[in-house]
Amino acid sequence: MSSAPAPRKLVILAEGSFGPHSGKTAYGVIRYGRDEVIAVLDSTKAGQNVAAYLPDQDIPILATLDEALALAARPDALLLGIAPAGGRLPSSWRAVILAAIAAGLDVLSGLHTFIGDDPEFAAPAAARGTSIIDYRRPPEDLQITSGRRHGAGKRIILTVATDCAIGKMSVALELRRAAEAAGDRAVFVATGQTGMMIEGWGVAVDRLVSDFAQGTIEGLVEQGEGLGDWVIVEGQGSLDHPAYSSVTLALIHGATPDAMVMVHKPGLEEHDFDRLPGTSFPIASLSPFIALHEQIAGLVAPSQVVAVALNTSLIADESEARRVISEIAAETGLPADDPFRFGPDRMWSVIRERVDALPWVADR
Amino acid sequence: MSSAPAPRKLVILAEGSFGPHSGKTAYGVIRYGRDEVIAVLDSTKAGQNVAAYLPDQDIPILATLDEALALAARPDALLLGIAPAGGRLPSSWRAVILAAIAAGLDVLSGLHTFIGDDPEFAAPAAARGTSIIDYRRPPEDLQITSGRRHGAGKRIILTVATDCAIGKMSVALELRRAAEAAGDRAVFVATGQTGMMIEGWGVAVDRLVSDFAQGTIEGLVEQGEGLGDWVIVEGQGSLDHPAYSSVTLALIHGATPDAMVMVHKPGLEEHDFDRLPGTSFPIASLSPFIALHEQIAGLVAPSQVVAVALNTSLIADESEARRVISEIAAETGLPADDPFRFGPDRMWSVIRERVDALPWVADR
Repeated sequence: MSSAPAPRKLVILAEGSFGPHSGKTAYGVIRYGRDEVIAVLDSTKAGQNVAAYLPDQDIPILATLDEALALAARPDALLLGIAPAGGRLPSSWRAVILAAIAAGLDVLSGLHTFIGDDPEFAAPAAARGTSIIDYRRPPEDLQITSGRRHGAGKRIILTVATDCAIGKMSVALELRRAAEAAGDRAVFVATGQTGMMIEGWGVAVDRLVSDFAQGTIEGLVEQGEGLGDWVIVEGQGSLDHPAYSSVTLALIHGATPDAMVMVHKPGLEEHDFDRLPGTSFPIASLSPFIALHEQIAGLVAPSQVVAVALNTSLIADESEARRVISEIAAETGLPADDPFRFGPDRMWSVIRERVDALPWVADR
Repeated sequence: MSSAPAPRKLVILAEGSFGPHSGKTAYGVIRYGRDEVIAVLDSTKAGQNVAAYLPDQDIPILATLDEALALAARPDALLLGIAPAGGRLPSSWRAVILAAIAAGLDVLSGLHTFIGDDPEFAAPAAARGTSIIDYRRPPEDLQITSGRRHGAGKRIILTVATDCAIGKMSVALELRRAAEAAGDRAVFVATGQTGMMIEGWGVAVDRLVSDFAQGTIEGLVEQGEGLGDWVIVEGQGSLDHPAYSSVTLALIHGATPDAMVMVHKPGLEEHDFDRLPGTSFPIASLSPFIALHEQIAGLVAPSQVVAVALNTSLIADESEARRVISEIAAETGLPADDPFRFGPDRMWSVIRERVDALPWVADR
């Protein structure tokens, strides 16, 4: 999809999963989305408020859809706030979706299993006149990379990382916010379902047919260049991930970013990926991993890692977090900061300067 | 698909494209397939014999399907012998496909555009009782990598390369042949449509949804381990290809090969990929490219490049070809040979020994 719809009033279905660890979609949409979230459904936390998890927010957590429908600010869409590995729909949620459709709500989903292709949902939605939006549905045209160069005056930045789900999307959104605050024409290019729910356009690249992933991403970045000068592309996965590294490489070689921002979570030892007993995949060592990214990207187009964005959420003490940030800056020789904890403005200003100095950007 | 069908009598449709440069599918099926090819259709070469291109073969090149149907060895399937970028069906071929269906032939296709999903073909095929096989149709289950280890006594070898279409499939098939000749229980794992047409099973990995590519490949290798001890996996693309590198990485991290064989074509300067005027992508320098493969593979599981398989077809003179092979062996410090030109047996014997000596294989 390629145009932002009008803002909605959302109920987020997050049954049994709302919280910092499993609620990546719900958290992202609440923190960064342009739609208004009027309720979260999670019977295991009913009676609480989202404010307990995300200060600055005031959103009730309810047990049932009926309670949400009774609110003064009546919802107009149900958003499925979960993204399990494999993307399959928990069967217990089907009744809630059907009830939402019956109440005239649109259904927004980022699951791999398309809600709109399920006759049990498609038929009542058609009858009721509501929409089902499957954000992971890929574009129909099959695009092969053309090898295009970026436009004059455009700078492309991609977030990469040492693991999944440690903040590539949020860093991109924070940097976009800081760029706009600094008066730069910046655009966030969503490459995953949550980013698309937030931004209203983009492509879920993990759903693309492999042969067309790099070409579709190339076209997506071109679209971003039409909307701003600083094109900040949301990364996916990590280059060393046993399941998702090829999606990461598709972004590196498809977007051909001028610069990359490495997202890292100090204190995390292993990939959160233990599907078989006895297997474990350690988090890469930062400096050689950064060098490897530049080497791999350079196989197609030159690119440099210009900063390290740290997610210090595992370090409670603020001065200890600052110490770790300094340590990593010294170790990598790169500017480092935690843009969530300490604000993204300083980091943006450093990134901006470093990107403009890159020879392949300066010459464009 | 996962089981080999009975051998067929094939007509290969290669209109306007039969020859060494564009007939990759036709050549592969003729040289290595278990089906009998009784005719090639290419009106631009009608009256010639395939023997003019591939000695050891005796297959007429005909102008029309009617001529092929009139042959004593009546065909039972039409194979579409083309694999254009993007996989779209040339419109001029539709009449031939319809005529084949009307004559009771099955239709075998490796195109991205599925023949069986086109009502213009599906309806008459159903009425006539013929089959349409789309080799690129992906498996329906969505597999995420589990991180499984290879079975005891199994050795996994993947072909990688410095470009597309320079011989990764053929090297894998030649090595399998040499392994069998040496009495080793070897299996060829097809990962592209031509390999599948040859072998009768496999998965076209470039058609997989990106999120499930590595997991599906992991399962495919497990299947290969069930069929033999030496599992030789056909590679795809190249790690530095602007359009297809992510498919290559999906194979490296999905198959987690113990060893890789690097396929290279001396004399080729650039990727055959000039979709935009003024763009060009040089072929990588061999030694650092080999080191990079080991580094990238090692992010998930250790692997070593154990040999360089050279495609010396650009070097007409045989002694010059041997000189280039020696030069590349010296440059890379690896055994090098052209297994097509000089036979695969010596290369297999060296690979076998080197793979068995790898610590992660010896300890298994």
